[in-house]
Amino acid sequence: MTIRLYDLAGARDDHRFSPFCWRVKLALAHKGLAFETIPWRFAEKDAIAFSGQGLVPVLQDGDTVIHDSWDIALYLDRAYPDRPALFAGPEAQALARFLVGWVGTRIQPYMLRLLVVDLLGCIDAGDRAYFRQSREARLGGPLEQVVLAPEEGVPELGRRLEPLRFTLRERPFLAGERPAFADYIVFGSFMWARCVSRIDLLAQDDPIHGWRERMLDLHDGLARRAWTV
Amino acid sequence: MTIRLYDLAGARDDHRFSPFCWRVKLALAHKGLAFETIPWRFAEKDAIAFSGQGLVPVLQDGDTVIHDSWDIALYLDRAYPDRPALFAGPEAQALARFLVGWVGTRIQPYMLRLLVVDLLGCIDAGDRAYFRQSREARLGGPLEQVVLAPEEGVPELGRRLEPLRFTLRERPFLAGERPAFADYIVFGSFMWARCVSRIDLLAQDDPIHGWRERMLDLHDGLARRAWTV
Repeated sequence: MTIRLYDLAGARDDHRFSPFCWRVKLALAHKGLAFETIPWRFAEKDAIAFSGQGLVPVLQDGDTVIHDSWDIALYLDRAYPDRPALFAGPEAQALARFLVGWVGTRIQPYMLRLLVVDLLGCIDAGDRAYFRQSREARLGGPLEQVVLAPEEGVPELGRRLEPLRFTLRERPFLAGERPAFADYIVFGSFMWARCVSRIDLLAQDDPIHGWRERMLDLHDGLARRAWTV
Repeated sequence: MTIRLYDLAGARDDHRFSPFCWRVKLALAHKGLAFETIPWRFAEKDAIAFSGQGLVPVLQDGDTVIHDSWDIALYLDRAYPDRPALFAGPEAQALARFLVGWVGTRIQPYMLRLLVVDLLGCIDAGDRAYFRQSREARLGGPLEQVVLAPEEGVPELGRRLEPLRFTLRERPFLAGERPAFADYIVFGSFMWARCVSRIDLLAQDDPIHGWRERMLDLHDGLARRAWTV
Protein backbone atom coordinates (compact mmCIF):
# COMPACT_ATOMS: atom_id res chain seq x y z
CA MET A 1 0.00 0.00 0.00
CA THR A 2 1.31 3.43 -0.90
CA ILE A 3 2.39 5.69 1.96
CA ARG A 4 -0.17 8.42 2.57
CA LEU A 5 0.67 11.86 3.90
CA TYR A 6 -1.92 14.33 5.18
CA ASP A 7 -0.58 17.64 3.95
CA LEU A 8 -1.88 21.11 4.80
CA ALA A 9 -3.58 22.77 1.82
CA GLY A 10 -4.62 26.37 1.27
CA ALA A 11 -7.55 27.79 -0.62
CA ARG A 12 -6.30 25.81 -3.64
CA ASP A 13 -6.07 22.05 -3.21
CA ASP A 14 -2.60 22.03 -4.75
CA HIS A 15 -1.24 24.86 -2.60
CA ARG A 16 0.90 23.06 -0.03
CA PHE A 17 2.99 25.31 2.16
CA SER A 18 3.36 23.71 5.60
CA PRO A 19 7.06 23.77 6.57
CA PHE A 20 6.66 20.60 8.60
CA CYS A 21 4.95 18.77 5.74
CA TRP A 22 7.76 19.87 3.40
CA ARG A 23 10.29 18.29 5.75
CA VAL A 24 8.41 15.00 5.40
CA LYS A 25 7.83 15.16 1.63
CA LEU A 26 11.55 15.71 1.08
CA ALA A 27 12.39 12.96 3.58
CA LEU A 28 10.16 10.51 1.70
CA ALA A 29 11.76 11.49 -1.60
CA HIS A 30 15.23 11.21 -0.02
CA LYS A 31 14.44 7.61 0.89
CA GLY A 32 13.02 6.94 -2.56
CA LEU A 33 9.62 6.00 -1.18
CA ALA A 34 6.49 6.49 -3.26
CA PHE A 35 3.75 8.43 -1.47
CA GLU A 36 0.51 10.21 -2.09
CA THR A 37 -0.56 13.36 -0.31
CA ILE A 38 -4.04 14.11 0.95
CA PRO A 39 -4.95 17.79 1.12
CA TRP A 40 -6.04 18.69 4.64
CA ARG A 41 -7.34 21.84 6.33
CA PHE A 42 -7.18 22.91 9.98
CA ALA A 43 -10.95 22.46 10.27
CA GLU A 44 -10.71 18.78 9.29
CA LYS A 45 -9.73 17.44 12.70
CA ASP A 46 -11.97 14.42 12.19
CA ALA A 47 -10.04 13.31 9.13
CA ILE A 48 -6.87 12.79 11.19
CA ALA A 49 -8.47 11.82 14.50
CA PHE A 50 -7.07 8.31 13.94
CA SER A 51 -3.62 9.79 14.63
CA GLY A 52 -4.66 10.72 18.17
CA GLN A 53 -4.07 14.45 17.70
CA GLY A 54 -5.06 17.32 15.45
CA LEU A 55 -2.12 18.52 13.35
CA VAL A 56 -0.35 17.52 10.16
CA PRO A 57 1.92 16.03 8.96
CA VAL A 58 0.32 12.67 9.62
CA LEU A 59 1.88 9.69 7.87
CA GLN A 60 0.06 6.44 7.25
CA ASP A 61 2.23 3.52 6.18
CA GLY A 62 0.17 0.34 6.17
CA ASP A 63 -0.97 -0.10 9.77
CA THR A 64 1.51 2.44 11.10
CA VAL A 65 0.36 5.99 11.82
CA ILE A 66 2.85 8.64 12.89
CA HIS A 67 2.54 12.38 13.35
CA ASP A 68 5.15 15.12 13.89
CA SER A 69 7.81 15.61 11.24
CA TRP A 70 10.69 14.63 13.55
CA ASP A 71 9.04 11.38 14.65
CA ILE A 72 8.18 10.60 11.04
CA ALA A 73 11.84 11.01 10.03
CA LEU A 74 12.97 8.70 12.84
CA TYR A 75 10.33 6.19 11.78
CA LEU A 76 11.43 6.26 8.15
CA ASP A 77 15.06 5.51 9.04
CA ARG A 78 13.93 2.73 11.38
CA ALA A 79 11.43 1.17 8.97
CA TYR A 80 13.59 1.52 5.83
CA PRO A 81 17.18 1.03 6.98
CA ASP A 82 18.37 -0.11 3.54
CA ARG A 83 17.43 3.16 1.87
CA PRO A 84 19.46 6.39 2.08
CA ALA A 85 19.66 7.50 5.70
CA LEU A 86 18.07 10.71 6.95
CA PHE A 87 20.52 10.71 9.88
CA ALA A 88 24.04 9.29 9.71
CA GLY A 89 23.84 8.02 13.30
CA PRO A 90 22.93 8.97 16.88
CA GLU A 91 25.30 11.95 17.10
CA ALA A 92 24.16 13.42 13.78
CA GLN A 93 20.58 12.88 14.93
CA ALA A 94 21.17 14.71 18.22
CA LEU A 95 22.81 17.61 16.37
CA ALA A 96 19.95 17.73 13.85
CA ARG A 97 17.63 18.07 16.84
CA PHE A 98 19.44 21.29 17.76
CA LEU A 99 18.41 22.57 14.33
CA VAL A 100 14.77 21.78 15.08
CA GLY A 101 15.17 23.97 18.16
CA TRP A 102 16.98 26.70 16.24
CA VAL A 103 14.39 26.88 13.47
CA GLY A 104 11.51 26.51 15.92
CA THR A 105 12.58 29.20 18.36
CA ARG A 106 14.71 31.69 16.40
CA ILE A 107 13.87 31.46 12.71
CA GLN A 108 10.33 30.34 11.98
CA PRO A 109 8.59 32.48 14.63
CA TYR A 110 10.42 35.47 13.17
CA MET A 111 9.55 34.48 9.59
CA LEU A 112 5.91 34.19 10.72
CA ARG A 113 5.93 37.85 11.69
CA LEU A 114 7.12 38.72 8.19
CA LEU A 115 4.77 36.39 6.33
CA VAL A 116 1.64 36.34 8.41
CA VAL A 117 -0.52 38.59 6.25
CA ASP A 118 0.62 36.84 3.06
CA LEU A 119 -0.13 33.53 4.77
CA LEU A 120 -3.61 34.62 5.74
CA GLY A 121 -4.29 35.34 2.10
CA CYS A 122 -3.49 31.72 1.21
CA ILE A 123 -5.49 30.02 3.95
CA ASP A 124 -8.67 28.22 2.94
CA ALA A 125 -11.85 30.22 3.69
CA GLY A 126 -12.97 27.67 6.27
CA ASP A 127 -9.67 27.94 8.16
CA ARG A 128 -9.30 31.70 8.10
CA ALA A 129 -11.03 32.56 11.38
CA TYR A 130 -9.05 29.88 13.21
CA PHE A 131 -5.81 31.02 11.63
CA ARG A 132 -6.38 34.67 12.50
CA GLN A 133 -7.38 33.96 16.07
CA SER A 134 -4.56 31.52 16.83
CA ARG A 135 -1.85 33.65 15.17
CA GLU A 136 -3.09 36.87 16.75
CA ALA A 137 -2.90 35.18 20.16
CA ARG A 138 0.62 34.02 19.36
CA LEU A 139 1.85 37.33 17.96
CA GLY A 140 0.05 39.52 20.45
CA GLY A 141 -2.10 41.71 18.21
CA PRO A 142 -4.07 42.12 14.97
CA LEU A 143 -2.11 40.54 12.12
CA GLU A 144 -2.16 43.70 10.04
CA GLN A 145 -0.54 45.56 12.94
CA VAL A 146 2.03 43.01 14.12
CA VAL A 147 3.27 42.11 10.64
CA LEU A 148 6.87 43.23 10.10
CA ALA A 149 7.76 45.50 7.21
CA PRO A 150 10.26 43.72 4.90
CA GLU A 151 12.67 46.67 5.29
CA GLU A 152 12.89 45.83 8.98
CA GLY A 153 12.28 42.11 9.04
CA VAL A 154 14.47 40.92 6.17
CA PRO A 155 17.73 42.42 7.55
CA GLU A 156 17.07 41.05 11.04
CA LEU A 157 16.19 37.63 9.59
CA GLY A 158 19.49 37.82 7.72
CA ARG A 159 21.36 38.35 11.00
CA ARG A 160 19.55 35.45 12.62
CA LEU A 161 20.53 33.26 9.66
CA GLU A 162 24.26 33.99 10.10
CA PRO A 163 25.08 30.51 11.50
CA LEU A 164 23.57 28.90 8.39
CA ARG A 165 25.46 31.26 6.10
CA PHE A 166 28.68 30.50 7.97
CA THR A 167 28.50 26.77 7.39
CA LEU A 168 27.15 26.99 3.81
CA ARG A 169 30.16 29.09 2.80
CA GLU A 170 32.22 25.93 3.31
CA ARG A 171 30.01 23.03 2.15
CA PRO A 172 27.13 22.51 -0.31
CA PHE A 173 24.69 21.21 2.30
CA LEU A 174 24.19 21.67 6.02
CA ALA A 175 24.82 17.95 6.48
CA GLY A 176 28.00 18.12 4.35
CA GLU A 177 28.55 16.86 0.81
CA ARG A 178 25.03 15.44 0.59
CA PRO A 179 21.73 16.65 1.99
CA ALA A 180 20.16 14.92 4.98
CA PHE A 181 17.20 15.55 7.27
CA ALA A 182 19.16 18.44 8.82
CA ASP A 183 18.81 20.25 5.51
CA TYR A 184 15.09 19.46 5.21
CA ILE A 185 14.46 20.84 8.71
CA VAL A 186 15.75 24.24 7.71
CA PHE A 187 14.62 24.21 4.10
CA GLY A 188 11.01 23.53 5.13
CA SER A 189 10.80 27.10 6.43
CA PHE A 190 12.15 28.51 3.18
CA MET A 191 9.60 26.48 1.20
CA TRP A 192 6.85 27.84 3.43
CA ALA A 193 7.98 31.39 2.65
CA ARG A 194 8.39 30.63 -1.07
CA CYS A 195 4.92 29.14 -1.41
CA VAL A 196 2.99 31.96 0.25
CA SER A 197 4.94 35.17 -0.32
CA ARG A 198 6.93 37.12 -2.86
CA ILE A 199 9.08 38.83 -0.24
CA ASP A 200 12.73 38.46 -1.19
CA LEU A 201 14.37 36.90 1.86
CA LEU A 202 17.86 36.31 0.43
CA ALA A 203 20.23 38.27 -1.78
CA GLN A 204 21.47 36.51 -4.93
CA ASP A 205 25.04 36.36 -3.61
CA ASP A 206 24.06 34.93 -0.23
CA PRO A 207 25.47 31.40 0.23
CA ILE A 208 22.05 30.49 1.62
CA HIS A 209 20.52 31.47 -1.73
CA GLY A 210 22.77 29.01 -3.56
CA TRP A 211 21.87 26.26 -1.08
CA ARG A 212 18.17 27.00 -1.50
CA GLU A 213 18.58 26.58 -5.26
CA ARG A 214 20.29 23.23 -4.73
CA MET A 215 17.51 22.16 -2.38
CA LEU A 216 14.86 23.17 -4.91
CA ASP A 217 16.57 20.93 -7.48
CA LEU A 218 16.78 17.82 -5.29
CA HIS A 219 14.75 14.71 -6.03
CA ASP A 220 13.82 15.75 -9.57
CA GLY A 221 12.86 19.24 -8.52
CA LEU A 222 10.16 18.11 -6.09
CA ALA A 223 10.19 21.43 -4.22
CA ARG A 224 10.68 23.60 -7.30
CA ARG A 225 7.55 22.21 -8.91
CA ALA A 226 5.37 23.30 -5.96
CA TRP A 227 2.65 25.84 -6.62
CA THR A 228 3.57 29.29 -5.33
CA VAL A 229 1.69 32.57 -5.18
CA MET B 1 57.01 14.06 23.57
CA THR B 2 54.07 15.52 25.46
CA ILE B 3 51.60 17.58 23.46
CA ARG B 4 52.02 21.29 24.16
CA LEU B 5 49.21 23.82 24.02
CA TYR B 6 49.73 27.58 24.00
CA ASP B 7 46.91 28.84 26.18
CA LEU B 8 45.87 32.46 26.75
CA ALA B 9 46.63 33.61 30.30
CA GLY B 10 45.48 36.68 32.19
CA ALA B 11 47.25 38.74 34.80
CA ARG B 12 47.72 35.49 36.76
CA ASP B 13 49.64 32.73 35.03
CA ASP B 14 47.01 30.17 36.05
CA HIS B 15 44.05 32.26 34.87
CA ARG B 16 43.04 30.61 31.59
CA PHE B 17 39.80 31.83 30.09
CA SER B 18 40.03 31.65 26.28
CA PRO B 19 36.88 29.92 24.98
CA PHE B 20 38.81 28.52 22.02
CA CYS B 21 41.58 27.12 24.23
CA TRP B 22 38.93 25.50 26.47
CA ARG B 23 37.53 23.72 23.43
CA VAL B 24 40.97 22.25 22.83
CA LYS B 25 41.78 21.35 26.45
CA LEU B 26 38.51 19.43 26.71
CA ALA B 27 39.11 17.80 23.33
CA LEU B 28 42.55 16.61 24.48
CA ALA B 29 41.06 15.25 27.72
CA HIS B 30 38.24 13.60 25.73
CA LYS B 31 40.84 11.70 23.73
CA GLY B 32 42.78 10.81 26.86
CA LEU B 33 45.91 12.58 25.63
CA ALA B 34 48.41 14.00 28.11
CA PHE B 35 49.30 17.62 27.45
CA GLU B 36 50.97 20.58 29.03
CA THR B 37 49.82 24.16 28.61
CA ILE B 38 52.08 27.15 28.13
CA PRO B 39 50.69 30.46 29.38
CA TRP B 40 50.66 32.98 26.56
CA ARG B 41 49.72 36.66 26.23
CA PHE B 42 48.55 38.63 23.19
CA ALA B 43 51.83 40.56 23.22
CA GLU B 44 53.86 37.36 22.81
CA LYS B 45 53.45 37.00 19.05
CA ASP B 46 57.07 35.87 18.75
CA ALA B 47 56.48 32.85 20.97
CA ILE B 48 53.97 31.39 18.50
CA ALA B 49 55.44 32.77 15.27
CA PHE B 50 56.40 29.16 14.38
CA SER B 51 52.66 28.53 13.85
CA GLY B 52 52.55 31.06 11.01
CA GLN B 53 50.01 33.33 12.69
CA GLY B 54 49.42 35.22 15.90
CA LEU B 55 46.58 33.69 17.93
CA VAL B 56 46.09 30.81 20.33
CA PRO B 57 45.22 27.98 20.64
CA VAL B 58 48.39 26.64 19.05
CA LEU B 59 49.02 22.92 19.44
CA GLN B 60 52.44 21.34 19.09
CA ASP B 61 52.48 17.56 18.80
CA GLY B 62 55.97 16.38 17.94
CA ASP B 63 56.73 17.98 14.58
CA THR B 64 53.12 18.90 13.93
CA VAL B 65 51.93 22.44 14.64
CA ILE B 66 48.25 23.35 14.29
CA HIS B 67 46.32 26.46 15.21
CA ASP B 68 42.58 27.18 15.37
CA SER B 69 40.43 25.08 17.69
CA TRP B 70 38.40 23.52 14.87
CA ASP B 71 41.47 22.44 12.90
CA ILE B 72 43.04 21.09 16.07
CA ALA B 73 39.95 18.94 16.72
CA LEU B 74 40.03 17.58 13.17
CA TYR B 75 43.74 16.85 13.57
CA LEU B 76 43.23 14.98 16.85
CA ASP B 77 40.61 12.65 15.34
CA ARG B 78 42.86 12.08 12.32
CA ALA B 79 46.06 11.51 14.31
CA TYR B 80 44.47 9.43 17.10
CA PRO B 81 41.70 7.42 15.43
CA ASP B 82 41.80 4.68 18.09
CA ARG B 83 40.87 7.06 20.89
CA PRO B 84 37.34 8.35 21.60
CA ALA B 85 36.13 10.33 18.59
CA LEU B 86 35.43 14.06 18.74
CA PHE B 87 33.10 13.68 15.74
CA ALA B 88 31.08 10.54 14.98
CA GLY B 89 31.55 10.98 11.22
CA PRO B 90 31.34 13.48 8.34
CA GLU B 91 27.67 14.39 8.91
CA ALA B 92 28.13 14.96 12.64
CA GLN B 93 31.22 17.02 11.80
CA ALA B 94 29.30 19.19 9.32
CA LEU B 95 26.52 19.74 11.86
CA ALA B 96 29.07 20.60 14.57
CA ARG B 97 30.40 23.23 12.19
CA PHE B 98 26.99 24.89 12.25
CA LEU B 99 27.48 25.22 16.02
CA VAL B 100 30.79 26.99 15.46
CA GLY B 101 28.85 29.46 13.33
CA TRP B 102 26.04 29.78 15.85
CA VAL B 103 28.38 30.42 18.79
CA GLY B 104 30.65 32.65 16.73
CA THR B 105 27.95 34.89 15.27
CA ARG B 106 25.03 34.84 17.71
CA ILE B 107 26.26 33.85 21.17
CA GLN B 108 29.84 34.79 21.86
CA PRO B 109 29.72 38.31 20.36
CA TYR B 110 26.70 38.97 22.56
CA MET B 111 28.39 37.48 25.64
CA LEU B 112 31.37 39.74 24.91
CA ARG B 113 29.15 42.79 25.29
CA LEU B 114 28.08 41.51 28.71
CA LEU B 115 31.54 40.47 29.91
CA VAL B 116 33.87 42.97 28.30
CA VAL B 117 34.58 45.12 31.36
CA ASP B 118 35.01 42.05 33.57
CA LEU B 119 37.33 40.63 30.92
CA LEU B 120 39.41 43.78 30.80
CA GLY B 121 39.97 43.42 34.53
CA CYS B 122 41.49 39.96 33.99
CA ILE B 123 43.78 40.82 31.09
CA ASP B 124 47.50 40.96 31.77
CA ALA B 125 48.84 44.51 32.15
CA GLY B 126 50.94 44.19 28.98
CA ASP B 127 47.88 43.16 26.93
CA ARG B 128 45.42 45.69 28.26
CA ALA B 129 45.98 48.49 25.72
CA TYR B 130 45.71 46.01 22.83
CA PHE B 131 42.60 44.43 24.33
CA ARG B 132 40.87 47.77 24.87
CA GLN B 133 41.68 49.08 21.41
CA SER B 134 40.71 45.92 19.51
CA ARG B 135 37.48 45.36 21.48
CA GLU B 136 36.46 49.01 21.29
CA ALA B 137 36.88 48.84 17.51
CA ARG B 138 34.78 45.66 17.44
CA LEU B 139 32.03 46.94 19.75
CA GLY B 140 31.95 50.48 18.42
CA GLY B 141 32.71 52.54 21.52
CA PRO B 142 34.43 52.84 24.90
CA LEU B 143 34.07 49.52 26.75
CA GLU B 144 32.53 51.15 29.81
CA GLN B 145 29.82 52.64 27.58
CA VAL B 146 29.06 49.69 25.29
CA VAL B 147 28.97 47.09 28.06
CA LEU B 148 25.47 45.67 28.55
CA ALA B 149 23.79 45.81 31.92
CA PRO B 150 23.05 42.25 33.15
CA GLU B 151 19.36 43.18 33.55
CA GLU B 152 19.24 43.73 29.79
CA GLY B 153 21.86 41.34 28.49
CA VAL B 154 21.09 38.19 30.49
CA PRO B 155 17.44 37.92 29.35
CA GLU B 156 18.36 38.51 25.71
CA LEU B 157 21.19 35.98 25.96
CA GLY B 158 18.62 33.57 27.39
CA ARG B 159 16.43 34.04 24.32
CA ARG B 160 19.38 33.51 22.00
CA LEU B 161 20.17 30.28 23.86
CA GLU B 162 16.68 28.83 23.27
CA PRO B 163 17.85 26.28 20.65
CA LEU B 164 20.36 24.87 23.15
CA ARG B 165 17.73 24.71 25.89
CA PHE B 166 15.33 22.96 23.53
CA THR B 167 17.70 20.10 22.78
CA LEU B 168 19.07 19.79 26.33
CA ARG B 169 15.56 19.24 27.66
CA GLU B 170 15.64 15.92 25.85
CA ARG B 171 19.22 14.63 26.16
CA PRO B 172 22.14 15.03 28.58
CA PHE B 173 24.57 16.39 25.98
CA LEU B 174 24.28 18.33 22.76
CA ALA B 175 25.85 15.36 20.94
CA GLY B 176 23.42 12.92 22.61
CA GLU B 177 24.10 10.44 25.39
CA ARG B 178 27.79 11.32 25.50
CA PRO B 179 29.63 14.61 25.01
CA ALA B 180 31.55 15.28 21.82
CA PHE B 181 33.31 18.25 20.24
CA ALA B 182 29.88 19.81 19.59
CA ASP B 183 29.51 20.20 23.36
CA TYR B 184 33.01 21.63 23.77
CA ILE B 185 32.33 24.24 21.09
CA VAL B 186 29.44 25.68 23.06
CA PHE B 187 30.79 25.02 26.54
CA GLY B 188 33.99 26.97 25.78
CA SER B 189 31.97 30.18 25.83
CA PHE B 190 30.43 29.31 29.19
CA MET B 191 33.89 28.58 30.61
CA TRP B 192 35.10 31.93 29.35
CA ALA B 193 32.22 33.64 31.19
CA ARG B 194 32.75 31.54 34.33
CA CYS B 195 36.47 32.30 34.52
CA VAL B 196 36.23 36.09 34.19
CA SER B 197 32.88 37.15 35.62
CA ARG B 198 30.42 36.54 38.43
CA ILE B 199 27.40 37.51 36.35
CA ASP B 200 24.76 34.78 36.69
CA LEU B 201 23.96 33.77 33.11
CA LEU B 202 21.65 30.83 33.82
CA ALA B 203 18.87 30.14 36.30
CA GLN B 204 19.24 27.01 38.46
CA ASP B 205 16.26 25.32 36.77
CA ASP B 206 17.50 26.02 33.23
CA PRO B 207 18.34 22.75 31.40
CA ILE B 208 21.47 24.54 30.18
CA HIS B 209 22.52 24.95 33.82
CA GLY B 210 22.32 21.20 34.40
CA TRP B 211 24.34 20.56 31.24
CA ARG B 212 26.96 23.10 32.30
CA GLU B 213 27.31 21.22 35.61
CA ARG B 214 27.79 17.95 33.74
CA MET B 215 30.38 19.57 31.51
CA LEU B 216 32.25 20.96 34.52
CA ASP B 217 32.44 17.43 35.93
CA LEU B 218 33.80 15.77 32.77
CA HIS B 219 37.32 14.37 32.60
CA ASP B 220 37.87 14.42 36.38
CA GLY B 221 36.51 17.93 36.72
CA LEU B 222 39.08 19.51 34.40
CA ALA B 223 36.94 22.60 33.81
CA ARG B 224 35.63 22.85 37.37
CA ARG B 225 39.18 23.04 38.74
CA ALA B 226 39.98 26.12 36.65
CA TRP B 227 40.80 29.34 38.48
CA THR B 228 37.92 31.83 38.39
CA VAL B 229 37.57 35.38 39.63
